[in-house]
Formats: sequence, C-alpha cells, structure tokens
Amino acid sequence: MTVTYSSKVANATFLSFHRLLLRWRGSIYKLLYREFILFSLLYSVLSIVYRFVLPYNEKRLFEKLSLYCDRYAEQIPVTFVLGFYVTLVVNRWWNQFLNLPWTDRLMFLISSCVHGKDEYGRLLRRTLVRYVNLTSLLIFRSVSTAVCKRFPTIDHVVEAGFMTPEERKVFENIRSPHLKYWIPVVWFSNLASKARQEGRIQDSIDLQNILNEMNVFRTWCATLFGYDWVGVPLVYTQVVTLAVYTFFFACLIGRQFLDPAQHHPGHDLDLYVPIFTLLQFFFYCGWLKVAEQLINPFGEDDDDFEANWIIDRNLQVSLLAVDEMHMNLPHITKDMYWN
Amino acid sequence: MTVTYSSKVANATFLSFHRLLLRWRGSIYKLLYREFILFSLLYSVLSIVYRFVLPYNEKRLFEKLSLYCDRYAEQIPVTFVLGFYVTLVVNRWWNQFLNLPWTDRLMFLISSCVHGKDEYGRLLRRTLVRYVNLTSLLIFRSVSTAVCKRFPTIDHVVEAGFMTPEERKVFENIRSPHLKYWIPVVWFSNLASKARQEGRIQDSIDLQNILNEMNVFRTWCATLFGYDWVGVPLVYTQVVTLAVYTFFFACLIGRQFLDPAQHHPGHDLDLYVPIFTLLQFFFYCGWLKVAEQLINPFGEDDDDFEANWIIDRNLQVSLLAVDEMHMNLPHITKDMYWN
Amino acid sequence: MTVTYSSKVANATFLSFHRLLLRWRGSIYKLLYREFILFSLLYSVLSIVYRFVLPYNEKRLFEKLSLYCDRYAEQIPVTFVLGFYVTLVVNRWWNQFLNLPWTDRLMFLISSCVHGKDEYGRLLRRTLVRYVNLTSLLIFRSVSTAVCKRFPTIDHVVEAGFMTPEERKVFENIRSPHLKYWIPVVWFSNLASKARQEGRIQDSIDLQNILNEMNVFRTWCATLFGYDWVGVPLVYTQVVTLAVYTFFFACLIGRQFLDPAQHHPGHDLDLYVPIFTLLQFFFYCGWLKVAEQLINPFGEDDDDFEANWIIDRNLQVSLLAVDEMHMNLPHITKDMYWN
Amino acid sequence: MTVTYSSKVANATFLSFHRLLLRWRGSIYKLLYREFILFSLLYSVLSIVYRFVLPYNEKRLFEKLSLYCDRYAEQIPVTFVLGFYVTLVVNRWWNQFLNLPWTDRLMFLISSCVHGKDEYGRLLRRTLVRYVNLTSLLIFRSVSTAVCKRFPTIDHVVEAGFMTPEERKVFENIRSPHLKYWIPVVWFSNLASKARQEGRIQDSIDLQNILNEMNVFRTWCATLFGYDWVGVPLVYTQVVTLAVYTFFFACLIGRQFLDPAQHHPGHDLDLYVPIFTLLQFFFYCGWLKVAEQLINPFGEDDDDFEANWIIDRNLQVSLLAVDEMHMNLPHITKDMYWN
Amino acid sequence: MTVTYSSKVANATFLSFHRLLLRWRGSIYKLLYREFILFSLLYSVLSIVYRFVLPYNEKRLFEKLSLYCDRYAEQIPVTFVLGFYVTLVVNRWWNQFLNLPWTDRLMFLISSCVHGKDEYGRLLRRTLVRYVNLTSLLIFRSVSTAVCKRFPTIDHVVEAGFMTPEERKVFENIRSPHLKYWIPVVWFSNLASKARQEGRIQDSIDLQNILNEMNVFRTWCATLFGYDWVGVPLVYTQVVTLAVYTFFFACLIGRQFLDPAQHHPGHDLDLYVPIFTLLQFFFYCGWLKVAEQLINPFGEDDDDFEANWIIDRNLQVSLLAVDEMHMNLPHITKDMYWN
Repeated sequence: MTVTYSSKVANATFLSFHRLLLRWRGSIYKLLYREFILFSLLYSVLSIVYRFVLPYNEKRLFEKLSLYCDRYAEQIPVTFVLGFYVTLVVNRWWNQFLNLPWTDRLMFLISSCVHGKDEYGRLLRRTLVRYVNLTSLLIFRSVSTAVCKRFPTIDHVVEAGFMTPEERKVFENIRSPHLKYWIPVVWFSNLASKARQEGRIQDSIDLQNILNEMNVFRTWCATLFGYDWVGVPLVYTQVVTLAVYTFFFACLIGRQFLDPAQHHPGHDLDLYVPIFTLLQFFFYCGWLKVAEQLINPFGEDDDDFEANWIIDRNLQVSLLAVDEMHMNLPHITKDMYWN
Repeated sequence: MTVTYSSKVANATFLSFHRLLLRWRGSIYKLLYREFILFSLLYSVLSIVYRFVLPYNEKRLFEKLSLYCDRYAEQIPVTFVLGFYVTLVVNRWWNQFLNLPWTDRLMFLISSCVHGKDEYGRLLRRTLVRYVNLTSLLIFRSVSTAVCKRFPTIDHVVEAGFMTPEERKVFENIRSPHLKYWIPVVWFSNLASKARQEGRIQDSIDLQNILNEMNVFRTWCATLFGYDWVGVPLVYTQVVTLAVYTFFFACLIGRQFLDPAQHHPGHDLDLYVPIFTLLQFFFYCGWLKVAEQLINPFGEDDDDFEANWIIDRNLQVSLLAVDEMHMNLPHITKDMYWN
Repeated sequence: MTVTYSSKVANATFLSFHRLLLRWRGSIYKLLYREFILFSLLYSVLSIVYRFVLPYNEKRLFEKLSLYCDRYAEQIPVTFVLGFYVTLVVNRWWNQFLNLPWTDRLMFLISSCVHGKDEYGRLLRRTLVRYVNLTSLLIFRSVSTAVCKRFPTIDHVVEAGFMTPEERKVFENIRSPHLKYWIPVVWFSNLASKARQEGRIQDSIDLQNILNEMNVFRTWCATLFGYDWVGVPLVYTQVVTLAVYTFFFACLIGRQFLDPAQHHPGHDLDLYVPIFTLLQFFFYCGWLKVAEQLINPFGEDDDDFEANWIIDRNLQVSLLAVDEMHMNLPHITKDMYWN
Repeated sequence: MTVTYSSKVANATFLSFHRLLLRWRGSIYKLLYREFILFSLLYSVLSIVYRFVLPYNEKRLFEKLSLYCDRYAEQIPVTFVLGFYVTLVVNRWWNQFLNLPWTDRLMFLISSCVHGKDEYGRLLRRTLVRYVNLTSLLIFRSVSTAVCKRFPTIDHVVEAGFMTPEERKVFENIRSPHLKYWIPVVWFSNLASKARQEGRIQDSIDLQNILNEMNVFRTWCATLFGYDWVGVPLVYTQVVTLAVYTFFFACLIGRQFLDPAQHHPGHDLDLYVPIFTLLQFFFYCGWLKVAEQLINPFGEDDDDFEANWIIDRNLQVSLLAVDEMHMNLPHITKDMYWN
Repeated sequence: MTVTYSSKVANATFLSFHRLLLRWRGSIYKLLYREFILFSLLYSVLSIVYRFVLPYNEKRLFEKLSLYCDRYAEQIPVTFVLGFYVTLVVNRWWNQFLNLPWTDRLMFLISSCVHGKDEYGRLLRRTLVRYVNLTSLLIFRSVSTAVCKRFPTIDHVVEAGFMTPEERKVFENIRSPHLKYWIPVVWFSNLASKARQEGRIQDSIDLQNILNEMNVFRTWCATLFGYDWVGVPLVYTQVVTLAVYTFFFACLIGRQFLDPAQHHPGHDLDLYVPIFTLLQFFFYCGWLKVAEQLINPFGEDDDDFEANWIIDRNLQVSLLAVDEMHMNLPHITKDMYWN
C-alpha cells in the first residue's frame, strides 16, 4: 500500500520535514539497512586489515591506493546520472498512476443510459460492467505480481465471479497467440450495440459515448501493459547502477582514515567512523532506491500501488452503481437556500 | 490564501525584484526565522566553546575536525538534489491547481439545457448543481485539513445545506467500505437521465454533453484525491531532507572561524559572523521550504489554496447561474458598432 | 509589444546570433544598464577606497576579506538556482501565451450555425459574439495592468461598446462577492439555448458544439486568471533573488584587484577593470531579468503581450465574421486545376 | 530540407555514431567552418605576436594576462546556460513540427461526407479543400522566408491557383488592419453550412465534425504563427550568446601556450596547436549552432522544414482525395484469409 | 524484441538492481564489448610504448603530454551534454512507443457498428479493417528496416494479403510523387460513408465516430513517420559524439600511469590497469549507447520495437474481432453476486 504522509506535511512549520525522518514504514532506513550493514562491514574489515594486519610497506602502498581511489571517486558523476535517471523513473511512475483503470466513468454512463429496471435490464448492465472489470483484471494479471499470485489461472478468475463458465469456454475457443485482454472489450461493444438495437440504449449518441468511454478504459489498460512491457532501457539502468556501485567501491578504499603520522593532505584526523561517507551512502543509495521502488510500481513494496484493492473496489462499487442505485434516487426536495 | 504578488512585478524595472525581498507575508523570513535562530544559536555555542572553553590540545583537534567537516560539506550535492526535487514538487503543485474542481462548465450547461421555469424545473437544476457541489465537498474533506476542520462529520455537510436529510439516509444505507464520493455522481447521472425521459432535457446530445462534463468534474476530484493519496515517495523526501540537514550539520563545525594564528589555509580572517554560511542557510533551507510549502497545498500555509473559499464560491455562483439567471436575459439591443 | 526577431535568425549563417547582440529594444542592455551603472559605481568606490584611502594595516585586512569573499562567491550555486527557476518561469510564460483567449474558433461556429440574414439573426450573432468579447475583457481587466488603466471602471466598458447600459444594470444587480466574469458566459449559453428553441440554431449538436467552444474560451480566461492569481511561490523568487544579490555583493569585495606586490595567489595582475566580473554580471543578472520580464507577461515591458491590442483585434474581427461575412460567399468557380 | 539520418543509426552497432561524424550536409563542420577559421586565425595572430613580437617585459605581462583569462574562462557557466537554453529551443522546434498544418484529416472527412458526383458536388469539395490550403498558405507566407520569396504578393497566390480572382476582390474588400488568414476559414464554415442546408452534407453531426477539424487546422496555423511572433525572449538569447562569445574571447588569450621556461603551473609543454580548446570550440559553438538552426525552423538551413514542399504536397494530395477518389472505390472482394 | 525486466525488479529488495548487472541480452556488455576491447588495446599499446620503447627524453615529453591531456579531459562537460541529450532521445523514444498504431479502438467500433451477419456485411467489416492494417503497413515499410526487409515491394504486400491485386492496380494508377499511405484512408472513409448510405451503419454519429478513430489511427502513423523523417538534429548528435570521443581520446594519453619515480602529483602508484578509467568508459559510452539504441527504435537492436510482430498481431486480432466475434456473444447469465 502506498505510504501516505501528506497530512503530516500540510503546513510548513518549524522543522516540519524532520518528523518524516523518524518514520520506519516506507522509509529509507527500512529499504537500505541491509545494504548499509554490508557496506559498514566491508569498510570495517578493510580498516582493521589496514591498521592491524598490513606490514609497514604494504601500509604505504595501501595509502597510495586509497588516495588514488579517493581522487577518482570524486570524478564519478553519480549526482547527475542519478538526477536524470530518477526524474525519468518518477515521471513514468506517475504516468502509470494516472493510467490506473477506474470503472467510475463507465459505470455512471451505464447506470444512466442503459434503461430497464426489469431482470433483463439488470442483466445487461451487470454484464457490461463485469466485462469492464474483467478487462482490467486480465491486464493486471500480466502486470502485477501480487494479482498474478491471487489469480494464477483463468480458473481463479472464473471462481472469483469475473467470468462465467460459459464465457470461459468461448474465451478459450478463440485462438490467438497474443494476449487476449481485448476479448471482453469486443463482447462489451457488441453487447452494447445489441442493447441499442433492442432499444435499451435509447439513442446512437448514448451508445457512442459508452463505446468511447470503453475505449478510454481500454487505453488505460493497454498503457499500463505498455509500461510493463517496454521499461526503461536495461542499458540505462545498468549504467546508473554501475556508477553508484563503482562510487561506493572506490569509497570503501578511498575513504579509509589514513595514518595521520604520514601527513597525507586531508588526512590529519582519524575519526574511525567515516560519518560523511556513510551519509553519502544514504543519499546516493537512497536516491537509487527511489528508482528501484518506482521502476515497477506493481510489486509488493511499501510504496507500490495495491492492484488487488483496486480490482475489488472497482467490482464492488460498479455493481452497486449500475444495479442497486439505477434510477433509485432520493426524493428531490427544496434545498436550504431556496429563495 | 495564496500570496499574489504578480502586479508588483508587472514591469521589469530598476531592481524590480528587490522590492519582493522586503515582504513578510508568505516570505522566506516568516518561514525560516525559527530554524535560522536555532542554527545561529548552535553555531554561537560551538564558537564560544571553541574560543573560550577548550584547552590548547582540544582546540587543535577541533580545528582538524572543522577542516574535515568543511571539506566534506562541499561534497554534499545539495544543489542538485534540491533542484530535481523542487522541480518535481512544483510540477505536482501546479497540476493540483489545474485540477481544482470548478462548477462553471457544468452550471452553464445545466442553466441552458435543462428547461422549465416552473418549480419542478428549478428543483431539477438546483438539485443537479447541488450534487456537483456535494461531490467536490466530499473530496475536499479527505484532502484538505481546513475543510476537514469545518465539516468534521456528515452532519455538518447536511447542516450546511449540501445534502438533504433524506439524501443522507440513502447515502448511509449504501454499504461500501470505500470512499463514497462517487454516490452523488451516480445520483446526478440518473437524475439527468430521468430529466431526459421527461423531456426536460430536449435531446440525447444535450444529456451526453452534461454527463461528459460531470465526468470531467469527477476526474478533477479523483485527481486531487490521487495527489493526496499517492505523494512524492517518502524515500525521496527523506533523501533530500537528510542531504540538507547533513550539510548544515557539517557547516556548524566546518564553517567556524579558526584561530588565524594557526595558519590553516583559508582561515586568515576571523569575522565572528559567518555571513556567507548564513546566506547559504537561506538559499538551501529556503529552497527546501518551497518544497515543504507546496508538497501539500491544502494545508493552512500562507501560500496554500483556500479550499473553503472555493466551496463557498462554487455553491453561491452555481445556484445563481442555474436558478435566478436561467433564461433571465437582458434585452437584446443593437450594439454601438451596428453598421 | 513582443519583440519579434525570428526573421533575423531564419538561417544559421556566419556568426548569425552576433547581430542580435547589437539591438537595443527588448535587449539585455536596455534592461540592465541602470543596475550595471550602480554595480560599477560601487565597485569603483571600493577600489578607490582600497587603493588610496586605507592605511597599510587596513589594506592587509581588506585583502584577507577580499580573498574570503572570493572563495565563498564561487560556492554560491547561482547557475543552478537560476537554471531551474528560469525554466519554471519560461514554461509558465509560454503556457500563458497558449491560453490567450482568441474568439476565432467561436466566431466561425456562430457565423455558420446561427442562421438568419434578417435583423434578429444579426442581433443574435452580434450579441453572442459581444458576450464572448466581454468575458475576455473582464478577465484582462484583472490580469493586465495596461487593460486596467484603459478600462478602470465598468463605465469605461460600457462606453467602449462591450456592454449595453441595460446589461450593465442586470450585471450589477447580480449580487456575488466573487469576480463576475462568468455572468456573460451564462447569458451566452442561455441566449444560444433560446436561439435553438426558436430554430435559429438548427440542431442540438450545433448548439452543443457552440457551448463546448464557449467552455474552451472560458477555460482560457480562467487559466489566465489562475496564472495571475497563483504565481510562482514568493519564497522561490526570494531564494533566487537573494542568491544573485549575495553573489554580486560578494563579488564587489572579492573581485577587487589586490596589490600584486603582496603575492596573493591569482592576484599577479592589476587590470583596474574587472572585465570578467562585469561579464558575469551580464550573464547572471540578464538571466534573472529574463525571469523578471516573463513572470508577469501582462505588464508594459518590451516583451510583454499586448492585451489591449488583442481585445481590439478580437472585437473587430469577430463582428466582421459573424455579421458582414455571414453567408456572404464569393461565387464558387472552377479552380485552375479542374481536370 | 530536413537531414534524415535515422536509417543510418537503425542498429546500435560497433561505433555506429562515428559514421555520422563523417557527413557534410547539415553537419557541424558545414555550419561552423567559417567561425572556426576566424577563431584559429585570431589565435594564431595572438600566438605569433606573443612569441615573436613582444619584448621581454610585455611577454611576462601577457603571461599574467593569459593566466588571469584562463582562470576566469573556467568560471563561465557555458555548459549550463547552453544546456537549459538548447532544451528550450529544441522543445519549441519540435512543437512547431507537430503543429505543421496537414490537410489529411479534413480531406478524408470532406471526401466521405460531402456528397454528389455531379459538377456542383465536385465544385463544393474542391472549393472547401482549396480554402483549407489557402489558409495555411497565408500563414506560411508570414512565417517562412522561403514561402515569402515564392509568394511575395497576393497576385502570386492567385496565379498559383490557391485563390480565384473573384475571391481576391472579396478578400481585399474586407477591411481589417489585422492579418487576414481567418477569412478563408469563415468562407469555409459558411460554405459547409450552406452545403448542409442544401442536403449535400447529410447530417448536422457530419457538419460539426468538419467544422471541428477545420478549427483544429486553424489552430495549427495560429500556433505556428504564435511561435514565429513570440519567440524565445531576446534577452535569453543574448545572455547565452554573450556567455559563449565571452568564453571564447577569454580562451583566445587564456589558452595560449606560455613559454615553458617560465614554469607557470600547467604550462610545461608547448604544443603550438591548442587541440582541446579547438575541440571545446566545436562542442560549445556546435551546441549554440543547434539553437541557431532550430530557433527559426522555417528558414533555408539544411535542417529546416520545407514549407514550400508541404504547400505543394497538401494541394496535390487533397484535390486528388476529394475529387478523383471520391466514391471511386476498388471492387470489394474476399481477402486471402476468408474462412 | 524489447528486453522486459520489470518482473525482476517488482520489489526493492536487498541489492535488487545488482541482479540486472549480470544479464547479457540487451545489456551494456553486449553493446559495448567491441568498443571496450578497442579502447583497452589502444591503451595497452600506448602503455607499452611509453614503458619499453621511448628513450629517456621522449618519456619525459610523454609525461608532460599526459598531464596536459589529463587536465583537459576533466574540463570536457561529457556528463551534462550526455544528460541533456539522452533525456531528449528518451522522450522521443517513448513518444514513438505511445504512437505505435494499434487497431484495437477501430476494430471494436467496426465490430459493433457495421451491421449485417450476411456475406456483404462480413466483406464490409473485413475490408474496412484490412484498409486500416494496410495503412500502418505502408508507414512501417518506410520507418522500420525490419519491415522493409520483409516487404521490399508492393508485390510482397499483395502476397501477404494486405491488398488485393485489384486494389493494387487502383493504388498504382493514382499518380502522386508523395508517399501514398493516405490512399487506403481515403478508401476507408469512402467505404464507411457508402455503408452509411446503404444503412449498414445505422446513424451518422456512428459513422463520424468511426471516421474520427480512423483519423486518430492515421495521426499515429503520420507521427511515427514524422519522428523518422525529422530526427534529432544531426549537429546535436555530432556534438555529443565528438564530446565523448574526445574525452576518451584525451583519456588514452592522460590516464596512463606515469613513472612514480618522477613524482608527478597524483602519480605515486602504478596499477597497470586503469580501473576507474575503464569504469568511466562504461558509464559514458553506456550512456551514449542508450541514445544510439533509442534514437531509431525501429531497427533490429535487442531493445527495439518489433514492428513485424505488431503488424501480424494487428491483422490477426482485428480480423477475428470484426468477423468471427461479430455479434457472437456468450449467453448472458446472472453473475455470482446477483442479489
């Protein structure tokens, strides 16, 4: 589930962001503590070897190596590479959020434009809405690992009531080597057209509006699928990861405290704990983790979109809207400000 | 209320921006003075300790520590991290502004396409418009802390005239674990459809246009909710905050004026007041404050959007437009340029 | 009026941009010469004081101060802060240009879809188009200082023929504490609806298309108003201004030519005129001036949008299109390429 | 004509971009060779003067000046200023490409929805399409220098068959001080409306769709005009140009090879040809040339859009589509995959 | 085929990106190994020459040259130039993905709005859909090298069943020097209009919706063509390539390990393998390769879009949807949640 903290930062008060530093769920600490322990461990080992194990000449050699590493560590353009890359990933992530398929627009139209309170009318509306939900479910199954775990086979889809057994037969009889999420959309458009012929949809403009909304819905689904199918090019991700890893590899050696007695420039002080390097570890790795978390927002991270919740919410709400609430209006009375 | 200063900068005259530096409301000074006092205090304490408390050897140690901190303070990429982060936050903030729900588009359509000057016609138009306002109110209640304070319960919504008591009953009888802001939209679309059947809306194209505008309105509401629900990932905010805080922590020690007698490079001068560090504090913390202020624009900051004002304005204006002003046109006469 | 120079740079020829450096209107020189003189003056005064007034010891102190200032001047991230800020301002400026309200789309529709060459038909079309122009005028009055000077009261609006005296009465009788630019839009939509009832607009689809275009027009107006109302957050502007001013304050002292005899590093040469600092003044202040000029494009700068011209052009052209040119077609004849 | 090289880089093979370095048309070499020669010449002259002309003391002075220039050359933020500026210009350039007016969308609609194979039907369709082409021609005349050369007066427009002599009279009788490209659009919409009255356009929805497409077309034209009218603010262009020119002015002096015998730091080697400075000249000036070339894409550069070709293509193709091809369908037969 | 790895990074776990470093297909290693070998070879040769071939004086000269190169290598702004350039290329690449022409939206409309289960109805629907597929095929032929190889001539298009021999004759009889991909669109719109006259399409609104969707489809095709036709300006690509190549040319000499005995600053250590330069080679060249790979996404790279697959999928799916599945609905039954 997404970590919502906006109410915590409604007002910009005294040190207001500092409170965010003390959270655990979805925080940088939770995401990074393992890498941090590993890094600290490696650093300590190297530090101990340098201080207690190496003989005199090897110590001097290590110092030269350390200075060499430090010099190049500063030349690695981690900041820029990360800045451009994270901007790309964040934009993609937000566009995926904007393309989550919600049934609301369609259910309002179906509820108001597919007429008839009798059983056939109810059947029509419920079936249309079910096809809509089925389409998004089929897409979510190939996009989200969480949904895939819940509905591993078409059997589970039928069991959950998104598809009737008969529909399943028809669905499986259609032979196509390609993903079949478009099949319920064809059913939907043909059923709507049939409803128009039978006069359940009064006018062609109503029909076209419903079909257009369905196409909007389908485009959301297809866009989500597109984002999953065509990700950030692997090479780009590798370049960024390599840059960050190289930087910290260079820091492991280059940020060791060297013997102050050797008077290497900038090495007058032995603090044992490389506090700023550890903080840099938090910035850069944290920044990279932002990307790792957002690059596929349909996993099971703390900050990922809960696809299963969306599926359930859509089904429940849309059936309510087109069936129980169809032409079931509260009595119209004068409001408080009448005259 | 938003701080508007555009009329102050209409022309780019001599030092025109410098006038902006002298404002208090919504200014960097108002937002930062507490943090600034804290920072100055800590800096002074450290300075006094260094100058008057520490014995000779500890002074030398402190100087080494100071040089070490100063060296690393410059390596912290505050500028970039802030640049990319603030750009992200500013974009989100502006998109939220663009998605504020205004009833204007709908009220024009309802006023001109739902016919009948009789009481039922008035009832129809007023009720439709009330549902529109109700939808946005329900969303604002979960998005804005100010609106939430004003309408803590559904009782307050009913009292303020956005909902009739009967509607409230129906509203509460609909069982759904999810946010119910979509219920008035279903009412709206069904009522519009009923008006079409009764001939109050003349044509299906009029109906569809009204339903489409309602869907636009609903999408604004849903988008606002989305921005509140799925914020900038917590990790990103933490990374930025950590970077800025670390930088100033390093500055506290690293920017102390060291004893010129020790001839540390760049420490020939003892000014007592670290004027440039304090100015840097203003840039960087001010930049971070831009983000703090905009990350949730529905709080009660000087620069936040006034949701309560929007709600009142929408209700007043839209009732006027669909009732009093319906088919209440000024007499058409020839204009000045006739022939 | 906007400074148009695109025809000057149609081709990328030998040193083609250098010609742009020699213009005065809308140029960096015209915008900056006052600040430049001030800066040069202050620099000269300091230089004279240092060279001829200060005694020996104070000179040495000043030199230390100068080196200190120079060192920190380089740490101020003017480039980045300006880069991100100007990008934001330029984007807003261009969006404002894209949202300027033009009557063209509406006048084509009204000219072709509101029928009748008789006086009532002419009245209808002219009145509809006048309401459109009135809406944009009301918005421009609160957005643009130039328009506000020309139409300080509603009287001036009536005198200029945008409103009839009768409309004015109705306009002022509508009691609303909020900006009233939406009133002509309600009139427009009701009048269009009336024309539909009377058969002057033949079909509901024609009516809806006209109403939709009117909503597009209104949205342009509202967006312009929004850009004026909710500007770039004041804090951001202050941060940037502070950064630039601090930088040049530091330069005033830090970029003085120190006595070469003192052998301060990088101070072997005394040129008297700090040519590169002056050039930097042009870059950075010029960059800031870009922002100052564009942050409110409805002032009276050389590069601002001429709102008054837009208002006149819209009125003249739209009355022509819907009245004189209505169904006044040139005879249709075969063109040159017939067969 | 645009330089298309995408087929050359279809695959990312061994050193694939290096092949692009060897092209002449539209290349950096063709654009820059004149400036490059000038820069080399000036550099050589200075170099010769320093080496052979200046006496001993002036040589030492020149060396100090050179070191001073070199130091400040590095402080000029050419990279950033160029990065932000070129990004702005490239975005504008691409948006201009996206707004090029193509008649395709309209010609499909006119071909299929304006009925009648008789002469009057042909006349109607051809005239409608001609008005469309005329609109874009009038805009291109004020935007593109190449089109302006080809059609310097309205006479040339009439001669080329875009306007009949009678239309020209009507066109010139309409008195308006403003650009008149909207006149053919009014003709178009009135003629379409007339065709609807006469039953040549069957339904109002067909008419409205055609009018909407015409408005899309007009908006493309108006947007192109807007990009030409309101360019990148002159100040911004001047800031960037100044920055680049100053940088190379500083390099002319600062990058001279100083006498190694003087042991100036970083001047141990005399290569005579400042290879890296020349390469920097190529990067930065090349980057600026990208902007110079794209800032007005309607000139006659190698990479500019060929407006004349677009005009001819549009006319030829659109007349074909609405006349010869109107209801001239190939016989419908069963395709290969039937059953 | 695009390299999909999103399921590998669904969760941000311990070192989750490091797994991506070990892939071969579409990886940085596969793309760069040839350049890497070349670079290493040249570096080694230079190293050997310096160490074993050069006599004493030439060694000293080489060292000076190396220091000179190293100093300038750091001044080349590879990071920025690449950052801005790659951002541009990535945006274009993604927009091309978003404009891939999918037949889905059209096939739903045709399947539901073109009536008749008889042979003529089937013929109509199949032909309409075939024209849609033909349009995209004609565009893909000029955009994608892979499609061009598969369909080198119109003969191949006819053989593959996208065009009947008769259509081919008509197609070739239409004389136009311009690309002819718009011809099937004219056929499509005329055939749809004919179907409307014959009552196969029931209402004008259905027809207009179909024509609008066809225009959307055509715009996708035209946009793809535009991206291919008007690429990133050649000069920009050359600037970036030059910058990267120059940088590595400077590194070849400047990053040699110099004899520690000469005590050049920063050259105390001889590691033989310039590990950080090689890593920098991977970042920068990898970053450039991102651009090389994406600048034309219709080639045959690992990460390119598979145009041939899209063509086959579209044809197969769209024929299924409009023919077999037309009004072939599963029986409507009550769903699980009925009451």
